[in-house]
Amino acid sequence: MDYPHDQHPGAPVRSGVPEHGRVPKYYAVKARIDALVGGLGEGAVIPTERDLAERYDVARETVRQALRELLLEGKLRRQGRGTVVAGPKLEQPLALASYTEGVRRQGRTPGRSLVALDRFPCPAPLADETGLTRGEPVWHLERVLLADDERVGLESTYVSVARLPRLDAEFDPDSSFYAYMGGQGIRLGQADERIETVLATPREALLIGTSPALPMLLIHRVSRDAEGRPLERVRSLYRGDRFSFSTHLKS
Amino acid sequence: MDYPHDQHPGAPVRSGVPEHGRVPKYYAVKARIDALVGGLGEGAVIPTERDLAERYDVARETVRQALRELLLEGKLRRQGRGTVVAGPKLEQPLALASYTEGVRRQGRTPGRSLVALDRFPCPAPLADETGLTRGEPVWHLERVLLADDERVGLESTYVSVARLPRLDAEFDPDSSFYAYMGGQGIRLGQADERIETVLATPREALLIGTSPALPMLLIHRVSRDAEGRPLERVRSLYRGDRFSFSTHLKS
Repeated sequence: MDYPHDQHPGAPVRSGVPEHGRVPKYYAVKARIDALVGGLGEGAVIPTERDLAERYDVARETVRQALRELLLEGKLRRQGRGTVVAGPKLEQPLALASYTEGVRRQGRTPGRSLVALDRFPCPAPLADETGLTRGEPVWHLERVLLADDERVGLESTYVSVARLPRLDAEFDPDSSFYAYMGGQGIRLGQADERIETVLATPREALLIGTSPALPMLLIHRVSRDAEGRPLERVRSLYRGDRFSFSTHLKS
Repeated sequence: MDYPHDQHPGAPVRSGVPEHGRVPKYYAVKARIDALVGGLGEGAVIPTERDLAERYDVARETVRQALRELLLEGKLRRQGRGTVVAGPKLEQPLALASYTEGVRRQGRTPGRSLVALDRFPCPAPLADETGLTRGEPVWHLERVLLADDERVGLESTYVSVARLPRLDAEFDPDSSFYAYMGGQGIRLGQADERIETVLATPREALLIGTSPALPMLLIHRVSRDAEGRPLERVRSLYRGDRFSFSTHLKS
């Protein structure tokens, strides 16, 4: 039996190599660089494309494709003009708690940077999803999410103006929105969430500072307050190479 | 204020177009094909690459890149030699319940196809993660997951041989593993899950019938039985273009 005993159970079976043993050349190079990376620590600089091409006796384009996938997966990251070994993905709990609390729990400093705060009449799809009234004024708060000053995500919150009439005047966009709501006497009661993977649009890539078409994790949230009244619709986009989400399930 | 009122609140803001208005040509074409797709029904055949290139007055390679992203995102799918509008993503609950139950709840027929059933001594990383004893015999059950005969995922389950000594002789690999465990008097008690996005390896792409490097949703599960004893480690890989996961959160 050729099961690779030393392999981590969460890793792809047989290192992702098909049973027939034929793998694309770039993938063989990727597996070797991945093994090399495993032996280095976070932040270690990896050899240049040219060095790797020489070492594995392949074309530079082959090395480039292997590096591209390792970058997309978050095993490597660009730093200045070099490429370094990335740290583990941040693990956020799927919980009612805010982004702020999730990031703090991991010993990182959360931050947010305002993109836009708009006010407009609630469109029909938003009314249908949330239970808000069609045409009533709603805020759209859009912010870039930061962890230790690194841009990691983009969040759009839609909330009724009637609930938070002074949002534009009072709220510090670099602070926790849920903390602000709490201060206004609004407590979160429940939320439906849906998580999927999407590719970053050019606008999102620009705002987050990633390459376009990077796989992202997108979380849709529709929440109600503790009294069961419609509260907010949130669209949270996280870098797929930097985040994972965890949950605890009970019977 | 130029907020697009008619836009679905879950969609990217300003259709993903940066404020400076400069977008890659392929992305402009992608947005137009996306709008075209929105007006057609599931299963409708879209125009050929050549027709689209003529219609939008761009190179075929530009159309190809736009179609590639729409395929990766699951808005389109290949059918025979053509490309058709895909249906909505399947929405699985993040719950203790099995794949089988989740797919049935959506009115689809679940299926599984055996890749391998191996038996080997529990390696150290698996023992550390699950609480099983290092060196004790464990099963590794690997199956392709199907929905209405379409291959949609790949699942690896690691479970102690002592718990299910007759798995190889008794278990029908095209049936629900949790139903089989239930029949052996084993009830699932709780599980820790972690969800991330990864790229399909060549082996996974071959088994699931996708193109390599398709963004996938990977769910890691470590579960215990109703008495709190270590039960299984599962690695479930789902096509990112076909699946989303949902959860309900309460305070």
